Amino acid sequence: MTYDTNLSKKAAENLKRLRMKKPLIHNITNFVVMNYNANVLLAIGASPVMAHAKEEVEEMVSISNALVLNIGTLEPDWIDSMIKAGKKANKLDIPVILDPVGSGATEFRTESARHLIDEISIKVIRGNASEILSLAGNRSDTKGVETRHSVDDVYTMAHMLANKLGVTIAITGKVDLITDGDTILRVFNGHELMGFVTGTGCASTAIIGAFLAVDNDPVSASATALAYFGLAGELGAKKAGAPGSFMTASIDALYEIDEAILEKGTKIRS
Amino acid sequence: MTYDTNLSKKAAENLKRLRMKKPLIHNITNFVVMNYNANVLLAIGASPVMAHAKEEVEEMVSISNALVLNIGTLEPDWIDSMIKAGKKANKLDIPVILDPVGSGATEFRTESARHLIDEISIKVIRGNASEILSLAGNRSDTKGVETRHSVDDVYTMAHMLANKLGVTIAITGKVDLITDGDTILRVFNGHELMGFVTGTGCASTAIIGAFLAVDNDPVSASATALAYFGLAGELGAKKAGAPGSFMTASIDALYEIDEAILEKGTKIRS
Amino acid sequence: MTYDTNLSKKAAENLKRLRMKKPLIHNITNFVVMNYNANVLLAIGASPVMAHAKEEVEEMVSISNALVLNIGTLEPDWIDSMIKAGKKANKLDIPVILDPVGSGATEFRTESARHLIDEISIKVIRGNASEILSLAGNRSDTKGVETRHSVDDVYTMAHMLANKLGVTIAITGKVDLITDGDTILRVFNGHELMGFVTGTGCASTAIIGAFLAVDNDPVSASATALAYFGLAGELGAKKAGAPGSFMTASIDALYEIDEAILEKGTKIRS
Repeated sequence: MTYDTNLSKKAAENLKRLRMKKPLIHNITNFVVMNYNANVLLAIGASPVMAHAKEEVEEMVSISNALVLNIGTLEPDWIDSMIKAGKKANKLDIPVILDPVGSGATEFRTESARHLIDEISIKVIRGNASEILSLAGNRSDTKGVETRHSVDDVYTMAHMLANKLGVTIAITGKVDLITDGDTILRVFNGHELMGFVTGTGCASTAIIGAFLAVDNDPVSASATALAYFGLAGELGAKKAGAPGSFMTASIDALYEIDEAILEKGTKIRS
Repeated sequence: MTYDTNLSKKAAENLKRLRMKKPLIHNITNFVVMNYNANVLLAIGASPVMAHAKEEVEEMVSISNALVLNIGTLEPDWIDSMIKAGKKANKLDIPVILDPVGSGATEFRTESARHLIDEISIKVIRGNASEILSLAGNRSDTKGVETRHSVDDVYTMAHMLANKLGVTIAITGKVDLITDGDTILRVFNGHELMGFVTGTGCASTAIIGAFLAVDNDPVSASATALAYFGLAGELGAKKAGAPGSFMTASIDALYEIDEAILEKGTKIRS
Repeated sequence: MTYDTNLSKKAAENLKRLRMKKPLIHNITNFVVMNYNANVLLAIGASPVMAHAKEEVEEMVSISNALVLNIGTLEPDWIDSMIKAGKKANKLDIPVILDPVGSGATEFRTESARHLIDEISIKVIRGNASEILSLAGNRSDTKGVETRHSVDDVYTMAHMLANKLGVTIAITGKVDLITDGDTILRVFNGHELMGFVTGTGCASTAIIGAFLAVDNDPVSASATALAYFGLAGELGAKKAGAPGSFMTASIDALYEIDEAILEKGTKIRS
C-alpha cells in the first residue's frame, strides 16, 4: 500500500512546529486519563494544563493554544465549565476539540455531547464509531466506551455529520477516518495493544489538540496527529508485548520519534 | 502445602469465561486508582467503565455485568450515586461488590460503608482486616488504608459478619480469607511488593467484580480472582524487584497469564 | 563542586527515620498526580492517604504525620477542606506543606494560594519560580505550571517572602533553592527528564511532607527531600532515556536508594 508523501511531510513539519512552539494545551478531561494524557502531552513536546473550575477556565484557556474537552467521568458542573471555556476559546480563536467519551452509552453523555456541540464552535470531534454515530442521531448500543462498528459502516454518517455540523470528524478504529465533509483521509498507523491501555483514545484527542495549535487545517492536523500516535503504538509494540510495558514503551516512542522517523512511518492516504 | 485442585480448575474456567464474555464492569471508584484499575480490567480481558454522575449511573449499570463500589476519596454525592446504581443493579440482578477503603479510619468512611451495606444487597465485601473489622462494629485503629491485624485475628469476626449481613467477606493480607459464613477459603498467592503499589487492594476488588460476572458463586469467584491477581504479583516480582517496574510487570502478567498458567499457579485451600 | 557533608549525613538519617516511622501522609491534592504521588510515597517508605471531603479531613489529618496541600485541579470546595484540615493540623502541631500549583496562571489559583497562607500556619511552600513569585505579589506570566524564571532571578523575592510569611520557601528548578529567610541551601540533584513527567514537582512536595514528619527543621527536611528525589531522577536516567521508562525507573530508584547511596549522592550546599 502506498501512502500520501505530502501528508508524511506535513506530519514531520507539524511535529517540528510543535516542538518549537511547545503549545500550552488546556484539558478539561476525565479523571481516568488525566495523568496519562498529561504525560503524553509532555512526551510529544507540548505543555499540558488540567483545570476545570468555572472560576478559572476562561483565564486558563486565554493563555492556552488549544482547548481539549473530554466528557468521560462527566458531572453537570463540568459541562458548564466546558461551555464557559469553549465560548472564551471561540472568542479568542483558540481551537477546540471534543472527545465525546461514552456518548451513546447513556442519555446524559449523548445529550451533554450534543449540548457542547450546540453551544461551542468546535474544530474537531474525535471518537470511536459508536460515539460518533450517537451524535448523528442514532442510538447505538455502545458497550461502555468501546465500539462495535467498523470504520466503513460509519463513513456515510461521518460525512453527513461533518457537513451538518461544519466540523471535522475523526473516527478512530482499526483504520482511522478523518473528514470535514469534503476531504477524506484514512490513517493506517496503530497497533491492537492500544486497545488494552485505558485512555489511548483520549490521548489521541489531546494530541490532535496539540497539532491544531500548529496546523490550521483540522483535517491534516487530525490525520498527522493520529499517524504520530499510531506510529508510537507500532514502535512501542516492537519493544513490549503486553499492556503494562507497552504503555511505557509507547510514551517513550512519542518522545523518541523525530521528524525523520515520523515522515518515514506515517501511513495516511485518502 | 497442597492446594485444592478443583479450585485451580475453577480459576482457569473463570478466566476462560471472562475472556469470552468480556464483561463490562461499572466502577464508581476513587480518583487515586481509576486509571490503574481500568488498566487492570483491560489487561485481564474485561471492559471497564468509570461513571459516577447521578444522572447516568442507573443507565450505565443497566448495560454492565457487575458494579464495583469503592469508597476511597469519598464525597457525600458519590454515596448517593452508589446507592442509586446499587439499587438498580439489585433490581436487574447484577452483582455488586464493595470495597470499604479506609473504613475505620474516619467515621465518615465507616458510616458510609455501613450505609451502603444497609441500602444495597451486596454480594462481596473486599477489604483489609481493619476495614472489615470496622464494619463489624469495632473501631479499629486503621492507619490510613493499611491494616495492623493478621488474617487469623479477624477470622471469627469475618465469619460472624458474613452470617449477619448475608454477604461474602474477602479479607486480603498475607493470606487472603474468603467466607460466606459457611465455606471458608484461603488464598496463598501474592507478593509483598504489591503493598508498595497504590490501589492493588482496589484492583483486586475490581477483578472480583469481573469474576462475579462469570461465576455465580461469590466464594469461588472471589477466591479465584484473588489467586489470579496474586499470581500476577508473583510473576511480576520475578521480572521486577522494585515498585515502579513491578507495577508494569504485574499488569503484563495479568494479560499474559492463560488458563494453563493460572490452573498451575493457583494456591487456594480451605 | 563540593557539597555539605553534614547535610549528606542528614539526608541519610532522615531516610532511615522515615523508613522506621513509616509516617502517614495526608494529601489533599490534584487529580492528575494522586496515583503517581501515592506510589512515590509508598516507594520511599511512607504511607499515603488521599482524602478531601470536609466530613472527614479533620479526623484523617489527626491520625497523620504531615499534611500536603496541593492546589492543582482546584475547586472552591477543596479550598474549604484544605483550610479545615490545615487548622486542625496546626492545632495538633502536624506539619503542613503547600504546593501552589499554577499560582500566577489564574487569579483563582493565586488568590486561593494566598488565602491558604493567610488561614493556615504553613511550614514549607514548594513551587517553581513563577508560582513563588506570584505569592510575593508579582503577577508573573506563568505558562501553565511551568516556569520562565531562573532560580537566581527569584532569590531576593524568596528571601523576602520567607521572612514576611515566616515560612520556608523551596523553589525547584535546575538548581533548587531553599530558604527560611535566614539559612539558604541549594540542591544540585536532579535530571532534565523529570520535566517530562507530570507531577514530579507535586511529588517532590509530597516527599518534603514525609521528611517533615521525621525532621523538625523545615530547611534541612526540604533540602534533603529534594536531594533524595533528584538523586532518584539521576539514577532513573541512567536506566532510561525517555519519559515513560524514566518514570518507572525513578520510582524504582526511590525504593532502592538506601542510606549509603543517599549520603553519597546528596548534592547540597549553601
